[in-house]
Amino acid sequence: MAVYTEVTDDDLAQLLTRYDIGELMSFRGIAEGVENTNYLVHTTTGAFILTLYERRTERADLPFFLNLMEHLAAAGLSCPTPVRDRDGRNLGELNGRACAFVTFLEGFWLRKPKPEHCAALGEALARLHLAGRSFPMRRENALGPRGWRPLYARFAAEADRIASGLHGLISDELAHLEASWPAGLPQGVIHADLFPDNVFFHHDKLSGLIDFYFACTDALAYDIAICLNAWCFEPDFSFNHTKGHALLTAYEQVRPLEPAERAAMPLLARGAALRFLLTRAHDWLHRSPDALVTPHDPIDYLRRLRFHQRVTTIAEYGGTAAPRGPAQ
Amino acid sequence: MAVYTEVTDDDLAQLLTRYDIGELMSFRGIAEGVENTNYLVHTTTGAFILTLYERRTERADLPFFLNLMEHLAAAGLSCPTPVRDRDGRNLGELNGRACAFVTFLEGFWLRKPKPEHCAALGEALARLHLAGRSFPMRRENALGPRGWRPLYARFAAEADRIASGLHGLISDELAHLEASWPAGLPQGVIHADLFPDNVFFHHDKLSGLIDFYFACTDALAYDIAICLNAWCFEPDFSFNHTKGHALLTAYEQVRPLEPAERAAMPLLARGAALRFLLTRAHDWLHRSPDALVTPHDPIDYLRRLRFHQRVTTIAEYGGTAAPRGPAQ
Repeated sequence: MAVYTEVTDDDLAQLLTRYDIGELMSFRGIAEGVENTNYLVHTTTGAFILTLYERRTERADLPFFLNLMEHLAAAGLSCPTPVRDRDGRNLGELNGRACAFVTFLEGFWLRKPKPEHCAALGEALARLHLAGRSFPMRRENALGPRGWRPLYARFAAEADRIASGLHGLISDELAHLEASWPAGLPQGVIHADLFPDNVFFHHDKLSGLIDFYFACTDALAYDIAICLNAWCFEPDFSFNHTKGHALLTAYEQVRPLEPAERAAMPLLARGAALRFLLTRAHDWLHRSPDALVTPHDPIDYLRRLRFHQRVTTIAEYGGTAAPRGPAQ
Repeated sequence: MAVYTEVTDDDLAQLLTRYDIGELMSFRGIAEGVENTNYLVHTTTGAFILTLYERRTERADLPFFLNLMEHLAAAGLSCPTPVRDRDGRNLGELNGRACAFVTFLEGFWLRKPKPEHCAALGEALARLHLAGRSFPMRRENALGPRGWRPLYARFAAEADRIASGLHGLISDELAHLEASWPAGLPQGVIHADLFPDNVFFHHDKLSGLIDFYFACTDALAYDIAICLNAWCFEPDFSFNHTKGHALLTAYEQVRPLEPAERAAMPLLARGAALRFLLTRAHDWLHRSPDALVTPHDPIDYLRRLRFHQRVTTIAEYGGTAAPRGPAQ
């Protein structure tokens, strides 16, 4: 949570003259968004989020993210909709940063999601995957399997500072996943970071998905694996089978999984756990003493990874190992 | 800027059931407020700020602050209005912190106020002082002259780490101000921290005053002296006489100064500069390496203090040294 770039009233009022969203009423820096600076802006026509993209977000990727949000919103998915200026651009510039206005979504994220929320998530994720089929742009997953080894190389020598034996465990896991990572699964747009704080609810109904800044083109089932990691473990790191069942069942009601996706789920879940273990371990070791953001504890994902290493079928996550036949 | 205390959706929704301000729509931690945690809360009836009072705000002082805001709002001053719950209380509790909802003020603070804004400030400050006359509660100014020496004692030995010779300068200034501080000036409610970031404007009109958490009972003219320090110096620490004139003239159109207040202004301005020099120097020396808030540079107020030391009459600030007679 941080405001990295301060914005002045003059600069913001000036920027707003390029858009048709009314006049500035108020703006407050908001304490969320690990990567970028966000302001909640009230204008005479409504509420918007102004994001200033900081160094960790590649400028070349911004059209993918913004056009994707626009595409998904047009397809009926509830997500922030980028605002285009009078020249049709959804990307602006402020204080030397690329920036964008998106519509403000009411709702809030749930600190303790229940199984019914996991079901709502599963349904929304499947709808996102279906809506993404007609999105024409592609973006490689920089944090997919091919990115793991180079990322790990940046801190491998220090890994055991986090936990004794971590270096050996990650090395073995990397070798195993690289050798056995499934190819040929259905690909498409994935959110790739659909943690509870990126899913808003209102009156217990899912009201929107946010933060598409890790979205990319990858195996759709890998997105499910990320959600199983992010939504279905309890604070004591036990896997909540009821939540997993709710998520997978609701997903399949919108987009049934192919047999290869079911079979791959334990491996995909290991990969997802390793991906967050790697980024968190990296950020943990490289955290600055005066950082504005407290890094997540990487051990949380080591615990998840160890769980997945013992899983052999999707049924252990609450899914159906074999596809259901048509109703008799 | 910081969120010190995380609030969950469940806790907030539960708290809201005690108030008549509608149901929770969204809430975001906002990156402002050095002392306390603030959330911008949208409910079905509007926007509110929820403040959680952290350790630096004395709980015993909260009724003074909240009742004052309510009193001033009732008197027609635009400021956040505390919301009372169904039992009539304006102070609640959340996550072990005292907390309050206040109405959200549209508008924003000006990074580069112009003379006309200083005039609007002067008028609003005088209106605050008049409206405060009928407020029945009292609160001593903990950061007034009697508080300066004990505060300085906490870091005097380290003062020269900030600037060579600072210890001698502060010691001399303290002795001078203690010996000559004016008694008998008109007293009342003062804001005591009316910096530009606590004054909102909209369409170049002052739309409200915020952050009453240093308000207290003290010499009214001392509040003006704080504003002269906070609003009328340029980034190069030169005093902007036009801004001072605008501020003082507009103030006097609502509440003319007494001769003793005019005469005391240079001394009051020195005192105000010393007060902010002391608190900033203290916070600078005691800053934590992992603080969420960057401390202000104390040197800014050393520069101001040196300016005031050479001032002999209010005319040098743009004021009228002798009261104007009635129009001929």
